[in-house]
Amino acid sequence: MSRFDEAAAQAARARQAVLTKPAGSLGRLEDLAVFMAGWQGRERPRIDRAQALVFAGNHGVVAQGVNPFPAEVTALMAQNFAAGGAAINQLCRVADADLRVVPLDLDRPTADFTTGPAMSAEEVVSAMQSGADAVDPDADVLLLGEMGIGNSTVAAALAAATFGGQAGDWIGPGTGASAEIMARKADAVSRGLALHAPSDTRGTLAAFGGREQAAICGAVMRARDLGIPVLLDGFICTAAAAVLTRDDPAALAHCLIGHESAEPGHRRLIEALALPIPPILSLEMRLGEGSGAAVALMVLRSALACHDGMATFAEAVIG
Amino acid sequence: MSRFDEAAAQAARARQAVLTKPAGSLGRLEDLAVFMAGWQGRERPRIDRAQALVFAGNHGVVAQGVNPFPAEVTALMAQNFAAGGAAINQLCRVADADLRVVPLDLDRPTADFTTGPAMSAEEVVSAMQSGADAVDPDADVLLLGEMGIGNSTVAAALAAATFGGQAGDWIGPGTGASAEIMARKADAVSRGLALHAPSDTRGTLAAFGGREQAAICGAVMRARDLGIPVLLDGFICTAAAAVLTRDDPAALAHCLIGHESAEPGHRRLIEALALPIPPILSLEMRLGEGSGAAVALMVLRSALACHDGMATFAEAVIG
Repeated sequence: MSRFDEAAAQAARARQAVLTKPAGSLGRLEDLAVFMAGWQGRERPRIDRAQALVFAGNHGVVAQGVNPFPAEVTALMAQNFAAGGAAINQLCRVADADLRVVPLDLDRPTADFTTGPAMSAEEVVSAMQSGADAVDPDADVLLLGEMGIGNSTVAAALAAATFGGQAGDWIGPGTGASAEIMARKADAVSRGLALHAPSDTRGTLAAFGGREQAAICGAVMRARDLGIPVLLDGFICTAAAAVLTRDDPAALAHCLIGHESAEPGHRRLIEALALPIPPILSLEMRLGEGSGAAVALMVLRSALACHDGMATFAEAVIG
Repeated sequence: MSRFDEAAAQAARARQAVLTKPAGSLGRLEDLAVFMAGWQGRERPRIDRAQALVFAGNHGVVAQGVNPFPAEVTALMAQNFAAGGAAINQLCRVADADLRVVPLDLDRPTADFTTGPAMSAEEVVSAMQSGADAVDPDADVLLLGEMGIGNSTVAAALAAATFGGQAGDWIGPGTGASAEIMARKADAVSRGLALHAPSDTRGTLAAFGGREQAAICGAVMRARDLGIPVLLDGFICTAAAAVLTRDDPAALAHCLIGHESAEPGHRRLIEALALPIPPILSLEMRLGEGSGAAVALMVLRSALACHDGMATFAEAVIG
């Protein structure tokens, strides 16, 4: 597993200190440049190739009436991604990211976690492998996103299983749930938590699902092996990746969170994970699809452009 | 003076409601698209041409020891801008903005506002005209920034004169002032506020300066005349533009604030101005130069790309 290269990070910090600006005045952009230097293992990190992976899955728990949209919308949105009509298509174009959408057995939803495990152990391994296999080894940064009707309910269950708390601490309106649907979400998550008591990453994914969450975990691990920093999206993506901390508390050390979601559980997740760099953006978005990660990629590009392209005081003969 | 086109904004809102996403799920990106539609007067606003103007000036108040850097740094940084070595050069390249730096009589600082008016009425008019003349009439959005050793002290004085409060409410570390320098900043601003009691925009600019602040005011007004939305930068840029509200409380209706600065006075300014859309970014930056506006431009581009390029539910046959 690749590690943070402290020497490269230190060289990047030293460079930031002599660029033509007051020390520290680029704020988070400086932190991002140093983070990327450490994980890419070079003083001047770069993003020649950004890959965005969006995993899509369907969930048996929709039988509990937890979403205002029917499950068929997942496949229709996958078609919309393929046709270039979704938000993430436009955002990846602006941010210059290679988008790949990976539908995971959309016609075969995971089982309803309120009545039994969502997935078998074999299904978990297979979905994690799909996620790992989708990672481009030549990417300089990996953006992760998801789509799946019902998956904010799954995310709430995964977060509660990982970090504790009650269903009500983690559920939110998602794509636009009414009070009635919210009550059904809370009830479904509570019953799921009463039924399952998983203690590790794979067990948690098996208990609650879904395939896109397992794929996100697989992709995060593969990126770590390859030394590729990761930009997570919002609540659902972060909740999926967070399940990895059940096996390894430092599993997300190479990850940034692109966007703090309007979904209320995300703030709680962000605090529980306590990653060294706070979410890059906070724009009241709550779409998923990797949309927050894609917008954040442009901030990351800005950080690296300053880090690489600015003159030093010596070069500019200032100070 | 151009006005917000409510019909275009309404058409943009209607379009947002039928794009393939849950209603409202793009959050601030939706607000930005509607804002741009209203000020550009078209349902689908666009940014083919973004102009970034950075005005630079020098300030007599530096005689009071309010800045850790000597006044000569303003001219050196102007050279750095010209040579492409500053942060704003890199950020404008990434964000695809045409950068123009306008040095304003750098060898002729404004007078020290603690002992008399910083500028004559004629100097104010001239600097405002320089700002107005620099605006590209073909720009689809205008980014504004500034550079000038000592100008966070000027900004504090302008903000206090415009919105009230004591010097201590508006001063901050700026480029990195020590406690001793901070005390001198507060003292200089207090003495300036005791000496001058301006009541309108030009009078306030004459009292405290400086040329780059007056140029920002001139550029904001010209952009309004031309129907060009404006992206303001951080504390100093916002404080300069805010002086326009002394003559017209709605003078900044066509303006967005790109970035909430780490400079503590900015939060207070943002609350006093109460613009309809909150600052786009908050990245602990405190550099000026238009750097926060340039990073925010990419978020604005993201908003318009989604608004223009996404499929509607009818086009995608969903829902």
